[in-house]
Amino acid sequence: MAPNFDTYHLLTPSEAALWAAQRLSLFSPGASLKAAEIGDGNLNYIFRVVDTATGVSVVLKQSGDTARISDQFKVSPDRNRIEHDVLVRYNAVVPGLVPQVYASDPVLNLTAMEDLSSHRILRKGWLEGRLYPRAAEDLAEFSVKTLVATSDGVLDPKQKKALVRDFINPDLCEITEDLVFTEPFADLRRRNLVSQALLPFVEKELYEDRRLRLEVAKLKAGFLSGSQALIHGDFHTGSVFVREDSTKVIDPEFAFFGPAGFDPGVMAANAVFALLSARAEGRENEAGTFLVRFVDRFIERWKDLWSVSVSDPSFQVPGYAEWHLNRVLSDAAGSAGLELCRRTVGIAQVKDLTALADPQARLRAQRASVRAGKALILGRDRVRSGNDYWKTVRRAAAKEGLD
Amino acid sequence: MAPNFDTYHLLTPSEAALWAAQRLSLFSPGASLKAAEIGDGNLNYIFRVVDTATGVSVVLKQSGDTARISDQFKVSPDRNRIEHDVLVRYNAVVPGLVPQVYASDPVLNLTAMEDLSSHRILRKGWLEGRLYPRAAEDLAEFSVKTLVATSDGVLDPKQKKALVRDFINPDLCEITEDLVFTEPFADLRRRNLVSQALLPFVEKELYEDRRLRLEVAKLKAGFLSGSQALIHGDFHTGSVFVREDSTKVIDPEFAFFGPAGFDPGVMAANAVFALLSARAEGRENEAGTFLVRFVDRFIERWKDLWSVSVSDPSFQVPGYAEWHLNRVLSDAAGSAGLELCRRTVGIAQVKDLTALADPQARLRAQRASVRAGKALILGRDRVRSGNDYWKTVRRAAAKEGLD
Repeated sequence: MAPNFDTYHLLTPSEAALWAAQRLSLFSPGASLKAAEIGDGNLNYIFRVVDTATGVSVVLKQSGDTARISDQFKVSPDRNRIEHDVLVRYNAVVPGLVPQVYASDPVLNLTAMEDLSSHRILRKGWLEGRLYPRAAEDLAEFSVKTLVATSDGVLDPKQKKALVRDFINPDLCEITEDLVFTEPFADLRRRNLVSQALLPFVEKELYEDRRLRLEVAKLKAGFLSGSQALIHGDFHTGSVFVREDSTKVIDPEFAFFGPAGFDPGVMAANAVFALLSARAEGRENEAGTFLVRFVDRFIERWKDLWSVSVSDPSFQVPGYAEWHLNRVLSDAAGSAGLELCRRTVGIAQVKDLTALADPQARLRAQRASVRAGKALILGRDRVRSGNDYWKTVRRAAAKEGLD
Repeated sequence: MAPNFDTYHLLTPSEAALWAAQRLSLFSPGASLKAAEIGDGNLNYIFRVVDTATGVSVVLKQSGDTARISDQFKVSPDRNRIEHDVLVRYNAVVPGLVPQVYASDPVLNLTAMEDLSSHRILRKGWLEGRLYPRAAEDLAEFSVKTLVATSDGVLDPKQKKALVRDFINPDLCEITEDLVFTEPFADLRRRNLVSQALLPFVEKELYEDRRLRLEVAKLKAGFLSGSQALIHGDFHTGSVFVREDSTKVIDPEFAFFGPAGFDPGVMAANAVFALLSARAEGRENEAGTFLVRFVDRFIERWKDLWSVSVSDPSFQVPGYAEWHLNRVLSDAAGSAGLELCRRTVGIAQVKDLTALADPQARLRAQRASVRAGKALILGRDRVRSGNDYWKTVRRAAAKEGLD
């Protein structure tokens, strides 16, 4: 029986191969295609389809109306449309820094894109001690270009409003609102994952610190109603494919118009995880260098690009560019701090910390992460350079003997 | 020939009567209906339809794809849908403070609503020296209830996102962006209306004041990307029908999710126009009292309502309510200042000032308005009470001999 592509269902690998043969001009007629499901994320299914004769390959990403990890967890398949449409925009703004997109299927909630099997996920590469000399500059370039292009003063206000509407993303924003901005600071649903050894520290430093929770509430208000730019929304080292000579940002399914500082802040925090993980095990890695270079390059490129991009005369008045960048940098530092806390105590943790085999080393890295996170949130209006991040993290690490 | 209600066209009065007879259950079958077009606004057409036997009446508001004042001026008829949908919401949140809505016709871009002919427009009533003892409290109540109900922490985040999408309002926001936030401070399109006598003052105090223009740019950024609450968007004394015993807010066609302080600030500024107009002619009126009572009541009721409405625990942390209200009050003072400037020098002026017959009196009132506007914009973070508005306005008026 021929497969039915007219109603949504999760494809089998052989259906995925057939879909690719039928819908994509990438493969010759009659090519022998093989497919496998290779996904390991929480939400979606990933099929890799290869022409066994030529080696030409493609990736199909399919989204259901529940999460891959649990069909109890409903999440709108509209995320596939958002990811596709954002990737198309990214290909126009930062070509080469994202996978190419070949086709989408709104019935099957499926997007066909460039196969990046020759790359490695940045988080994994760093855990293996690899070096990626281009990553900091490429990711800063990606972040600045995508954010500035969709900012007020650059994008026409009517075009912006149309995009705001297209990229309203209730289900995936809810995940971020709950997991980043709420639960790490008040374990309302008892979903946090905190060891007994860490719990007293977390209770004191996060749950019971009202000054911190007030600052977190301010950041949450900005996330809920600050539609500054089209943000990736999940811009961490697990959303980046790297080779020594190539950087590709993937997975923008959380994209929506939000605070421009969110993306660079989350990326900075994920460099800190790699750094703390290496220190906790006495390994060397490049994450500290990456952190400073990424932030400084972000600031430098933002200034360059903003000055040549801003077309609304209202925003060309002296002092505005600096004021606006400072807002972005405060939000970035705040977002970095949130990410450091939430990936340490929340439901979605990072391998950098969880994979630390020695419980004492893990505990020290976790505490240092929370300390750095708090310092970045509370001091976010004074974090204005890569070195400011570096000093904050070093102080937090030193308190836990990780210097 | 029977009128065709299946395609959009501007109704004749007799078609309006027929539409009302056919579509509304307000009138008995066979009732003798008379209709007249009674509009005097810039954008839309207003038909009043009356049953000559019973006196029962209704108002039909119809919107074309151009402005009433000029068919060169294109503006989306979608504003009629927005006005209808917002009025329906307002009727649920502040019943009695808005006209009842009977029906809408998305083909004709028409909304049928309560006839308020027994009321007077507040701006006109004040120019005639009338007193409206309920207006300050009613309008503060309207503003607080509509804003708090649609704020983050009160409205469910997913419901809010759906409403943000429904009320994206590109054409009418563009009018505000241009006329309120841009042109009064840089006469880019040469549309400002400034007399030769006033021009040197305006050039120095507005066009050439870079410190002011920087603060205006910050406010414009907030208007473009701060989706705090569903705002009325045109909340001035010409959008309020009053009787001694009744207050009705009309015309929410500019509504969208924007800064919560915008509405109360614009209303406060329009009380200042009435005040300056009366002072310039040596008349008495209640606008000064209104100003102080409106602002203080807004603050008092906001505190009351916020504390019982906020349901998101993140925003129940001590200090957040105060921080958030202070942001709203800063935006309100800034918006009041913008309104004072733009209605004095921009293309859409207010009768309070333009109707001043004596050129010297008019000039003094105009200069006082710009002075008060600047002071409110530049000092907005210190404007925290009705008395703060009052003192600012009194100082500006005194400089022009209007004390």
